[in-house]
Order: sequence, then C-alpha cells, then structure tokens
Amino acid sequence: MLYFLSDYTEGAHPRILERLAETNLISQPGYGDDCFTASAREKLRAECGAPDAEVYFLTGGTQANLTVISTLLQRWQAVIAADTGHIGVHEAGAIEYSGHKVIALPGRDGKLSAGTVADYCRGFYADETHEHMPFPGMVYISQPTELGTLYTKAELEELHRVCGDFGMKLFIDGARLGYGLMSPACDMTLPELADRCDVFYVGGTKVGALCGEALVFPRGGMPAHFATMVKQQGAMVAKGRLLGVQFDALFTDGLYWEIGRRAIDLAMRLKAGFVEKGYPLFADSPTNQQFVILTEEQLRHLRQHAAFETWAPLPDGRTAVRFVTSWATRPEDIDTLLRLL
Amino acid sequence: MLYFLSDYTEGAHPRILERLAETNLISQPGYGDDCFTASAREKLRAECGAPDAEVYFLTGGTQANLTVISTLLQRWQAVIAADTGHIGVHEAGAIEYSGHKVIALPGRDGKLSAGTVADYCRGFYADETHEHMPFPGMVYISQPTELGTLYTKAELEELHRVCGDFGMKLFIDGARLGYGLMSPACDMTLPELADRCDVFYVGGTKVGALCGEALVFPRGGMPAHFATMVKQQGAMVAKGRLLGVQFDALFTDGLYWEIGRRAIDLAMRLKAGFVEKGYPLFADSPTNQQFVILTEEQLRHLRQHAAFETWAPLPDGRTAVRFVTSWATRPEDIDTLLRLL
Amino acid sequence: MLYFLSDYTEGAHPRILERLAETNLISQPGYGDDCFTASAREKLRAECGAPDAEVYFLTGGTQANLTVISTLLQRWQAVIAADTGHIGVHEAGAIEYSGHKVIALPGRDGKLSAGTVADYCRGFYADETHEHMPFPGMVYISQPTELGTLYTKAELEELHRVCGDFGMKLFIDGARLGYGLMSPACDMTLPELADRCDVFYVGGTKVGALCGEALVFPRGGMPAHFATMVKQQGAMVAKGRLLGVQFDALFTDGLYWEIGRRAIDLAMRLKAGFVEKGYPLFADSPTNQQFVILTEEQLRHLRQHAAFETWAPLPDGRTAVRFVTSWATRPEDIDTLLRLL
Amino acid sequence: MLYFLSDYTEGAHPRILERLAETNLISQPGYGDDCFTASAREKLRAECGAPDAEVYFLTGGTQANLTVISTLLQRWQAVIAADTGHIGVHEAGAIEYSGHKVIALPGRDGKLSAGTVADYCRGFYADETHEHMPFPGMVYISQPTELGTLYTKAELEELHRVCGDFGMKLFIDGARLGYGLMSPACDMTLPELADRCDVFYVGGTKVGALCGEALVFPRGGMPAHFATMVKQQGAMVAKGRLLGVQFDALFTDGLYWEIGRRAIDLAMRLKAGFVEKGYPLFADSPTNQQFVILTEEQLRHLRQHAAFETWAPLPDGRTAVRFVTSWATRPEDIDTLLRLL
Repeated sequence: MLYFLSDYTEGAHPRILERLAETNLISQPGYGDDCFTASAREKLRAECGAPDAEVYFLTGGTQANLTVISTLLQRWQAVIAADTGHIGVHEAGAIEYSGHKVIALPGRDGKLSAGTVADYCRGFYADETHEHMPFPGMVYISQPTELGTLYTKAELEELHRVCGDFGMKLFIDGARLGYGLMSPACDMTLPELADRCDVFYVGGTKVGALCGEALVFPRGGMPAHFATMVKQQGAMVAKGRLLGVQFDALFTDGLYWEIGRRAIDLAMRLKAGFVEKGYPLFADSPTNQQFVILTEEQLRHLRQHAAFETWAPLPDGRTAVRFVTSWATRPEDIDTLLRLL
Repeated sequence: MLYFLSDYTEGAHPRILERLAETNLISQPGYGDDCFTASAREKLRAECGAPDAEVYFLTGGTQANLTVISTLLQRWQAVIAADTGHIGVHEAGAIEYSGHKVIALPGRDGKLSAGTVADYCRGFYADETHEHMPFPGMVYISQPTELGTLYTKAELEELHRVCGDFGMKLFIDGARLGYGLMSPACDMTLPELADRCDVFYVGGTKVGALCGEALVFPRGGMPAHFATMVKQQGAMVAKGRLLGVQFDALFTDGLYWEIGRRAIDLAMRLKAGFVEKGYPLFADSPTNQQFVILTEEQLRHLRQHAAFETWAPLPDGRTAVRFVTSWATRPEDIDTLLRLL
Repeated sequence: MLYFLSDYTEGAHPRILERLAETNLISQPGYGDDCFTASAREKLRAECGAPDAEVYFLTGGTQANLTVISTLLQRWQAVIAADTGHIGVHEAGAIEYSGHKVIALPGRDGKLSAGTVADYCRGFYADETHEHMPFPGMVYISQPTELGTLYTKAELEELHRVCGDFGMKLFIDGARLGYGLMSPACDMTLPELADRCDVFYVGGTKVGALCGEALVFPRGGMPAHFATMVKQQGAMVAKGRLLGVQFDALFTDGLYWEIGRRAIDLAMRLKAGFVEKGYPLFADSPTNQQFVILTEEQLRHLRQHAAFETWAPLPDGRTAVRFVTSWATRPEDIDTLLRLL
Repeated sequence: MLYFLSDYTEGAHPRILERLAETNLISQPGYGDDCFTASAREKLRAECGAPDAEVYFLTGGTQANLTVISTLLQRWQAVIAADTGHIGVHEAGAIEYSGHKVIALPGRDGKLSAGTVADYCRGFYADETHEHMPFPGMVYISQPTELGTLYTKAELEELHRVCGDFGMKLFIDGARLGYGLMSPACDMTLPELADRCDVFYVGGTKVGALCGEALVFPRGGMPAHFATMVKQQGAMVAKGRLLGVQFDALFTDGLYWEIGRRAIDLAMRLKAGFVEKGYPLFADSPTNQQFVILTEEQLRHLRQHAAFETWAPLPDGRTAVRFVTSWATRPEDIDTLLRLL
C-alpha cells in the first residue's frame, strides 16, 4: 500500500531519534527547565532573527491553537478565522470549550483577506449594540492554509496592519510551516514572517518530530504566568526535554528546512504528474498537500493501491481527495502512484 | 552531582527507545488508530485481567486527571480528594478551570479513609440546603500517594463500597503505579486494583516512558464521545503511535514491573541508610519516594552533592526533603549518597 | 418623543404591579418554593395543555437561552441556529462562554428550514472525521424570529421531526411568544407549539412583566439537578415569588393574550400606514416588530420625533429601522407617527 | 405561623413598590441606560463618599459574587475565603464553574484574619513550585459574615493592607450590609468601608428590595467591557430600571438605613429574650441573624409555632438554629415567640 494519508503517519526523522538516544541518560530538571529546551529556544530565536522572542514548546497543534487563543484573548473577545480555518472546523469545538467564539469570515482558497477582516471590524464598531457582541480580539490564519495555499508577504503585512488598526493580535498556525517556507512559491523567510505577526508556531509533529510545536512570540508579549495556564489545561509536559531535544535536532544543521524541501520536491512531482494526466486540481497548492478531483471510478481504483484522504464530496458526484508527502515519503512510491493514474 | 530530584529527569528506558526506532518507518493512521496502540491496549487488558476494559492513552498526569474528572463528572458534581491530593494542590487549579470543585477532606499519611468520605456524604445529604452545594460525584486517590504511602486491598475495597453507596465513581491516579505495586508492602495485584475502582491509570511518564499514561476503565464505562472531548481540550496526539509503541514496550516481557522493582530496591537501600544513620523520616514510604527530615546544616551539606526536592519547611526550622529513585538511578549513586550522610 | 424603541422600555402591566402589591406581605419560602410560583406553574401547564410539563422561571432571555443550552447539551455537542439567531449574534458570546459552539446555518427571513438542518446533519455524519467536530445536539429557533416572522405549524413539525431523526432537541426561544401566537398570521396555539418541540419559554420581560421567562419542558425531561445548575450560574432568584406572582398574574383572566393582541393590533396599524405611504418593508412581519426602510432624509426627519432602533445600514445608503409596539404603546402615538410620514 | 426563616420571605418595602408604580409608564432605554439607574448610581456615590465610584446593578448575591470574582481574577488566580464563606459553601460551586479555585482558610466566628491571609501568601510564594498552583488574587469576606458577626474598621484595614502587599483585591460581600452598618456594634460608616476595600456590594434583596445588589468599585477599576461580560453570563437585565428604581428608592430619605435599624432593633430584642431565658447562643451576632442552640425538645416545640432555619446539628444532639429579622418582621411576632420560650 502506498501511503499518502498525511504527514503524521510515521515516527520521527531518524536524526531526531538518534538525538533522543544520545541525550537519554543526562539528568535534567522537568517541565522545560532542561538544557535541551534552552538550547532549542536559543536556536529558534536565531532562526527567527528575533533575539527577544519568547518561545514555549507544546505537544500538538490543537493544543497550541487552544493555548494561544485562550490565554491571549480577554473573556469578552472572539477570534476571527476563515470559514475553512482548522480551529472552526476540525478541533471539536476546542476554542468554544475554552469560552471563545470563532467568527468565521469567508475565505478564498483557504485564505482570509485584510479587506474582509477590516470590513467586519468596521461593521462591528459601527453597530450601536456592539457591547452585546463578543469583540474581535485576534485573527487566526494558517501558513500554509488547510488547502495548502500560501499568504504572500504583502498579504501578511496588510493583515497585520489591519489587526493593529483594530487592536487585534495576528496569530499564525504554522503546523506545516516548514513545508510552506520551503515552497518555491513562498516569497518570505522565517524572520519576515516573524516580523509580520504577534505570535505563531513552528510545527514539529507534521514536519518530522514525534510530537511538538514551538510557540514563538517574536517581540515578547507571552502572557504572564503562561506556564501556570499551560499546566491548568493539562498541557505541561513533565519530561519537557522530549520537546527540547527534538526541536534542538530540527534546528541543527538545517534539518527542519531539509525535511520541508524534500517533501515539497516530491509533492511537486506528484502534482505535475496529476496535471499531466489530466486530473483536475481541487486547489492549486504549492506545498506538501495536493488536492485533486477524482471520478468515482478513479477513486475506487486508486483506493486499492494507495491510502489518501477523501476531502469533500462534490455536487457532481466526483470527490476531492488529498495526497500528502512528508520527510518519510519514498520517491519510488510517487513513481508507482503516477504509473497507476 | 547525584540526581534524586524526581523520576522524570532522564529520557526513557532504553528498550522503549529501541522499540520506537524499530517501528519508526511503519506507516500507520494517526490519532490512536494505529496497530501499536491496539496491541498495547490488548496487553493492558490482559495485565489487568479485564477483557472488557476500555483503554485510552494520554500524555501526562495532570492531563489524565483533568480528562477523567471533567468527562465523568456532571456539571453539578465535585470531586473529593485528600487535602494532600495532587489535583487539589499542584495542578494549577486545572480541575476548577474545568468547572468542578475539589472537596478537600483530611487525609492521614496522604490517604483518604472510607469513613471520612462516608461521613462527608452523609452530612451532605442530611443538609436541607444541599441542592445549593455541588454534589460529591467522584473520589480521587493516588496509589501510591503523594507521600509514597499505599492503600491496602481492604482499604480500597471499603472506599469503593462507600463510593457505590453514594453514587460516586472511584478514580485512582496511578502516575507511580509501577512503584506502588512492586513494593513489598503492597498487598494487591493489578487485577485486584482494577477490580476495586471505576477508572484508573497506569503511569508511564514516571515509570520509564518519555511520556504517556494509560487510562483504564476496567469494566467499560468510558464516557461516550471520549475522543471528541480529548480533542476538545487539546490532548489528542496526532502521532498516537508515540504512546502506543511505548506502552506496548512497557508491557512486553514485564518491563514495567522490572522498572518498578529495581527502583523500589534502590529506594529501600536509601531508606535503610537514612534510618541507620539516625535521620528521622517525614513519612514512612514503602515506595520509590523517600521523605526524610534534615537540619539546616545537613540540608546545606547534602545540597552541594545531590539534587533533591525540599518538600516542606517544618515549624522547628528543619526541612522535610524528598529523594526519588527510578529506572535511571545508578546504584553507585546510592552508595555515594549514603557515604555523605 | 414617540417611543417605539423596544417592548421593554416601560415597567410592567398595571395588573402585575397590583398583584405584587396585594401579595407583598405574605411570607413564603425563597428560591421558587413559594405558593405563587406553584400556582403560576400550574396555570402554565393548563395553558400548554401539558399536564406533565416541568416549568422553571428565570429572569431574562439570554439567561434562559444560556441555561437551556448549557444544561441540555453534552460537552461534545453544539447548537444549530439560523445565521440571524439571537444566540449567535447579540448575546455577547454567552453560549460559547458556556463551552458550546453555535453552528450558524443560512436562514430565510430569520427562519431555519428543516431541509437546511437535515442537510447539515447528513453531511456531518457522512464526514469520516466527524469525531473531530462538535456534534449537533440541539436546534434553536425563535417564535417569532428576530425579524418578526413566524414558523407555521407544518414547518415546526418538520423541524421537530428532523431533530428527532438526528438525536437533537428542538428549543424555541419565545421571548416574544405572546406577540407571535396572537398574530392573525399564526396558525398554531400554545398547546400545538408545546407539542412540537422539546423545550421552549414563554417570554415575560417583553410581554408585560418587569422581568421573567417561563421555561417549559412540555413532556418533562428537565435535566436532573437543574436548580443546582441555575444557582451555579448565578441565575437563581432568592425571592422567587417575584417571578411566580408575575406569571400568575399574566395567566389570570387571559392577561398575557390580551397584551399580545393589543400590541399586534397597533403594529398592524403601523405597518398598514407605512405601506400606504409607500415605505418599503425590510421584512414582512406579522408581529409586534415592524421593519421598514428609510432614506437618509426620512431617517433624519423621523428621529427628531420618535425613538426607534436602526437595524442595519443597506448597501444603497438607506437604513433598515425597527419600530416596536407593546402593552404600553399608546394608540395616539401611532396616529402621530403616521401623520409624520 | 411566626416567620423568621430569612430576610427574603416577603416582597419589597412598600415605598419601593410605590416608586415602581409611580415610574411605571415613563419610557426609558433598557439595559441600565435609564434615568432611574443613573440617579441611583449618583446617590450611591454620595452615600459612599466616593465621587469616582463605578456602580453596577445586578439581581442577586451569588450572581454578584460570581460576576465580581470571575471578571476581576485572571485565569491563573484563585480567591481566598473563610472556610465558612458563602462562595465556598452555598453557591453550588459557582466560582469553580467559572474556572477559579476557592482557597478556604480557617476563619474564626466566620471572620478571616489578616494574619491568616498573610501566612498563606507568604507560604505560597516561598514554595518553589508555586507556578504549579493557582495564585491568590483576591480575598473575599462578608460584612456581616454568614454568622452575623462584624469586622472592625481596624480588621478591615489590616486585611486591605495585606491584600495590597500581595497584589490581591479585597472584595466585600454586603448582601446584608444594611444590617451590618446599622448594628450598634459596628464601628464604621459606609464611606469608611468603601475606603478599605477594592470592590463591594450593597445588598438589596435581603434589605427590602424585590431583587438587586449594587456593586461598587469605590475608586474605579471596574474591568473593561464589564457589561459585555455581564451579558455573557446571562446576568444583564433588559428592564434595568427595575434595579435602578429600587435602589433610587432605597437611598431616598434614608430608607435603606431605616430598614436596617428596625431589623436590628427587633433582632436585639429577640437575642435579649433568648439570653434571658437561658438559651445558649451558637454565635454572638450583633446583626439581624440570631443563632441559638436548642435541645431536641425545644426544637420540636418551637417548630410548631415558628418557621426558622436549622443551621447545624451539634455533636451532643442539640441543634443550632437561625432566626432572622427584616423590614417585614412584625414586633408582635417577636413578643409571641419570646412568650413561647
């Protein structure tokens, strides 16, 4: 079976496992006060070009989203997201469970535009009864988005400016950030991204780690007593070194970027193959998730040989499906898949 | 520096790391639907002698406590714990953050007696205004307790009976269960424990794993849509295999019990040494945590050579401290420490 | 100044004040255990033709919505509402603050159709990943809606059936129920409405009371320990008689219906006047809220003489406004207003 | 039947009902933006000698406690209360439901001493692991207490100072404030109380109103967007005038103080009678709640003639009971009761 189900279907990049083994017997304090976490934090600051950045490691994406949103928002605030945004759709109501509304605004190709956000905010403050509504306090976006698309530097900049105008924070979910920044279609570097938002995370789980997301507040501003709140929601890791060692390895000798680049190369081959064979794309993704449209027959056929996710049924009976590459994808599997088309 | 700070200051038992490496490239679905998790689940059922048990893996202790308590309690219910109970003291108010009161009742040596619980419940239902108070819906205990002490089989049985009498669940925090059940002072087996409660967990983080706790509902009764609620609080692990592989390894060839026995042996040597040298015990613990009382001078002296936790300042100026052994403790370190006394 | 701002801008219907005065010195227990509350409960059961109904009095609309939704939903469930629904728009995120998502589906004239709900639910359960999404557990509608429109008996019946098909409760916000049921356009009685939902409330605040909404579970099914949960959110009234006396008065000699009929009559005169003078309607409401479209000049002119709410700015520069009648509206004010057009 | 069950068993002081009737038809905006609320607010500022005070009206005591605590505390903070404090005992876990722990410290005669609070806080900050515990952020006391006792001006001052030392707010529950300040044993005025805390409320429900508590932030500091949060928990009153008119009446011609004084006079007669007849006091209360100890026989006898609350069963088989006076207590009932002893 060819495996394109997602980018979290194998363990960890071998260099991460090696590093876990090498450091295994070194005694270190718990809860993230270990030397590996300190080193990883320092490396992230350097990668982000943000010497004053505050960095905190969490285990997963929903956890990172929940933690950032619920600790940064005031009780009377809500978070704005695209209608396709992960927090509004596939996180089991985690944000609402923490007490905050997700305001879903129409996106385009998974992206939220500065204009859409500004219009909403202007309408909100113009409404005489707005004290009876939750205030927009944050904008949440993903880079790349749920559809694999990318914000440009200019788009990000404009969103950040609009956020500033209306007293909101801009938060970027970077669960697949490595695949985004390594895309040839991406026009920004990590420091440039860090410069254009208030908080973001560098995803580990989907980019080669066993688990782990590195939360970055590029210019500081991590909420006071953040660790207490992390503990409060059961997200504090006793052996914090597990996250520290992994991120330290990911940012040693450019491993994180190497992982991203390799997956993108394979994804581009996959995409080119689909296009060449006349398969319509559901979304034009320049990153490691590829969305194509299959007829019922094609779907049935491919399913016998490959594991991939059905994304959405289409009104005409066809189905949008998703193929994902990662650090673990074997080039020969791409070849085999393309031959099957 | 000799390291007795806690049982989570090193990585994982080498056989766990080996198993992670061996299974690393096998593609498996996420979110706990992998074959390793299925196997670990099966092994736990066998170990517990509970073929109908429902098993779910979470990453840490506070997370396990929070998840069990907040999903099993109704909104109008509270959880009873000993005044020294971990959930009431050192979990940053996580239970209250989830909406539930922790009713602290006086314990003895860290243990809660069935009589104390029954008295509280009788008083509660006799109070005409009890509809204005949160109802006791669960009893939370730890085996071993925060002070390293152990419940006997008879004590557990009685507690479980009282819980049944008042419509409450009995939940056992087994963060250090391996050290408890392997203590020569322990008069119960894992199946006997499983038989005398409604839900408990087998701790991994403190017993050799990188992270992970195995939640067990021995006779079923896991709340409906448990996974959705786990996701909702950001506790679902994308690469669920990380937990599955580890518990599979822990329950292969009795590794879990081997880890427990070894740490207990070392702890008993430590305790005997302290007693022999005339150091008073703060608590008489038969498990891997040892509590002794140090004078200011002794404290200052030992601190130069060993890392351990100060537990509580005593009224007479002395200090209760804690020494912890684990799978990673080196026997020679025990010798060195004892020579320093 | 002519006052059409809302139906809660005066005190209470005089017969309610009289009844409060008459009963004032009778000593009765607190928290709703008084004889007036018992009597009001009985009268509501009779009016609803629902002898087994459970009835509970709360002080306001948002409170009633919040209490019903947060006590009936499980933690993993969300509530469906029309995109114009009060709970999703003008309640400051109260439902989300209680932990539940409001799933906004497109409505038509403020109404949600059974088809829209069924489509959503079918799509939800067809989605392989639906365990990662909050489950639809309830449908919330208002009768009349926020736009003054009414569900027909057939529409309600179909919605109720769809709710049953997907294991959801149907909850009707009846903040203005008296105005809805007394509309000549309404094709259902109170018992017929009670028969076609799982829980609803009979609004008092907007229909002549100082405060108060009567929650009705027509066939029982009030959640266990409801009072404890009401207390828990600070909604229990010490002098529960305040609510009991008022509802007892409202359902003595048909006062509630008399209030409704009178306001409808005045609203119909207002509407006819607007239509006659060529003012376009923003919504065709058969109840006590009337929505018309004003040009900027008309708005400026009318504002000098009358208080009313601006509802929404329209893209063409005109403004939708709302005029509301109530038990307190003076017929001569309608005449004066119509002369001003 | 003689009625001493509580101070909320009748309607409202007649002058309040009169004022409701007089103002009934005056049209005013909702949600507390009416002229009566503005006037009441102004009168309270004057009574408190606090021209900059921010004042907000809520309907009940638990609601006021919940609102103050949950809006002033940060998520990582807990509230300290005496072990007999109302919020920890009789509010159905409302504070915990809002996410915050109530730290119960031992009180004396229902009062919490500055020393007890300071000791707790010193211990908290001395604990190396305190980031794993909820931070004390507020001290909650009642004046008078649940046992009818009173803090002296010096005690209050010291508590307020300790709060300041540890960055905590001092919050006074004044559900029965009128009875406290009118006690001959009270050594402080309302402005003196307002000067020695950060927020408090002037209770209406138990002091002659139908419902209502006036929250006062004497030197400002009401949390931003307070109204939005009040709405969010379903506590906003549409006809805010209901609260405004009542407090306006209570603070016209000293009605509030007159009500307090009268109830205290009657309570003192009751207490003197009990003492004279040799009934032991359970608590020595100088306010409108009187606590006496009855033998089983006395209890049985009195119950046939009078309604009062049993407070607590005593170990020796006797029972502590509570008699409460109010604006509605008839002097002749006191006489009749005393004759029955």
